[in-house]
Amino acid sequence: MFKRVAIVGLGLIGGSIGLALHKAKAAQQVTGYDLGKGVSDRARKVGAIDQPFSALADAVRGAELIVLATPIGAMRSLLQSIADAVTPGAVVTDVASTKAQVISWAEEFLPSSVAFVGGHPMIGKELSGVEVADAMLFQDRVYCLTPTTHTAGAAIDKVASFVESLGARVRFLEPAEHDGQVAGVSHLPFVASAALMNTVASSLAWGDAAMLAATGFRDMSRLAAGNPEMYRDICLTNSESLVRWLNEYIAMLSQLRDQIAAHDTKLDETFAWSQQARLKWQASYDVE
Amino acid sequence: MFKRVAIVGLGLIGGSIGLALHKAKAAQQVTGYDLGKGVSDRARKVGAIDQPFSALADAVRGAELIVLATPIGAMRSLLQSIADAVTPGAVVTDVASTKAQVISWAEEFLPSSVAFVGGHPMIGKELSGVEVADAMLFQDRVYCLTPTTHTAGAAIDKVASFVESLGARVRFLEPAEHDGQVAGVSHLPFVASAALMNTVASSLAWGDAAMLAATGFRDMSRLAAGNPEMYRDICLTNSESLVRWLNEYIAMLSQLRDQIAAHDTKLDETFAWSQQARLKWQASYDVE
Repeated sequence: MFKRVAIVGLGLIGGSIGLALHKAKAAQQVTGYDLGKGVSDRARKVGAIDQPFSALADAVRGAELIVLATPIGAMRSLLQSIADAVTPGAVVTDVASTKAQVISWAEEFLPSSVAFVGGHPMIGKELSGVEVADAMLFQDRVYCLTPTTHTAGAAIDKVASFVESLGARVRFLEPAEHDGQVAGVSHLPFVASAALMNTVASSLAWGDAAMLAATGFRDMSRLAAGNPEMYRDICLTNSESLVRWLNEYIAMLSQLRDQIAAHDTKLDETFAWSQQARLKWQASYDVE
Repeated sequence: MFKRVAIVGLGLIGGSIGLALHKAKAAQQVTGYDLGKGVSDRARKVGAIDQPFSALADAVRGAELIVLATPIGAMRSLLQSIADAVTPGAVVTDVASTKAQVISWAEEFLPSSVAFVGGHPMIGKELSGVEVADAMLFQDRVYCLTPTTHTAGAAIDKVASFVESLGARVRFLEPAEHDGQVAGVSHLPFVASAALMNTVASSLAWGDAAMLAATGFRDMSRLAAGNPEMYRDICLTNSESLVRWLNEYIAMLSQLRDQIAAHDTKLDETFAWSQQARLKWQASYDVE
């Protein structure tokens, strides 16, 4: 059981972490801080935290575990800001979508007496805000942890037990490995969706075509509604992997375009390969 | 009220048309034909048709309205096969996803005494088969009709009243206009989804990355599970429009890739544009 856990950033993720910790009775006290006016009071009201603080330093001081639950764009300045307040021996973790960049900031700013273990819970975030926080959000979900070769074993154990208390399944992987994989299954799909929405809606016929868009278009454009600044920061902190995936994707689209232009009747072979891969994935992971 | 309507192809669409016609009491008799063994008997059992026929010619002979509810890949030979059996004065319509090609086949094969009006109901077809047919499938959905400048007014009126009896909203547009618009909102999204699934699943790390794929990936890969032959035929009968859209899409993806590679902090402007377009579309059409 943790004596004191501090959660910085009390949105859907931070709030749900607080609720899950309480549900599991995994922390004696949960403190919280959020930049937004009134957010930490609302987080206390819904039972996500026990003690709100209006100063970041006060929230993290004395905490055994500090969870940075903000978008990646806030991480650099956050790590700078907490550096002086964190108690020696404390462990810091985060929930950002890309890991190598956050780890390099942690190594740059945090004192050597404080360990950092990068984390990333794999959950879809269609909603936001502490009001929709849910103690079961992490239940049975994969939660990536990306310690480096320098990370102390005790710190890794501590964060792993934190993740398990949320009901999630820990998956250890190298930071670069994590970033490469999420670039493919998460960041590339976002860019593909935003580009599709942009392409179709910027055409002259969009006003009319919009009426013909059905469930397929709905699914393929849903991610495009995501927060632009958050996705910009994700893309820019994972640019190397993402550019590699985008090149692969553009090459595949170009191949299909050439087959369609040439009336190649073997076009169905690529579609059949994609279909089998999708059916296999959905069967393994029990999704529709 | 129609005296006799023939439905050729008794899957989800054909079956639902039969059920909707019965529900609206819009036809005295509905005959049906399907290539699949036992399908037309099952269609009678669920109440989609009154009279199954084991020969295509018998099903269409004497019908005032003939609805071709098969995939586009079957249309050419179907129009050839029914040409001798259709009663002079009859009207033929179809439900295929692309229109210009079907219309050219109809003009080539049908006798001049028979009118053809292309149709395309805008519904997502996640399921298939007469067992899941639903009289309400077309309720309030857009149903495109694409008469040409040669199409007789009486034939257009007849097909429009058929569509209205299904509960759908008729939308008239030029065949080429229809094909260009659906290429953008329907066929491009499919190719984007199949290409994404293919790109990601053909990577060496897919076995591991598959575990990290969440709801975003699920949405973006769902269309890839569609029937490969059906989509091949759709793509190849709408190749000109689709190639144009694919070029636009590839150009947009390339622009985003270049911005990401250059660490362009204005990347969010494109994402914001896409976000606004998506939010506006979903608000107008009342989708999530």
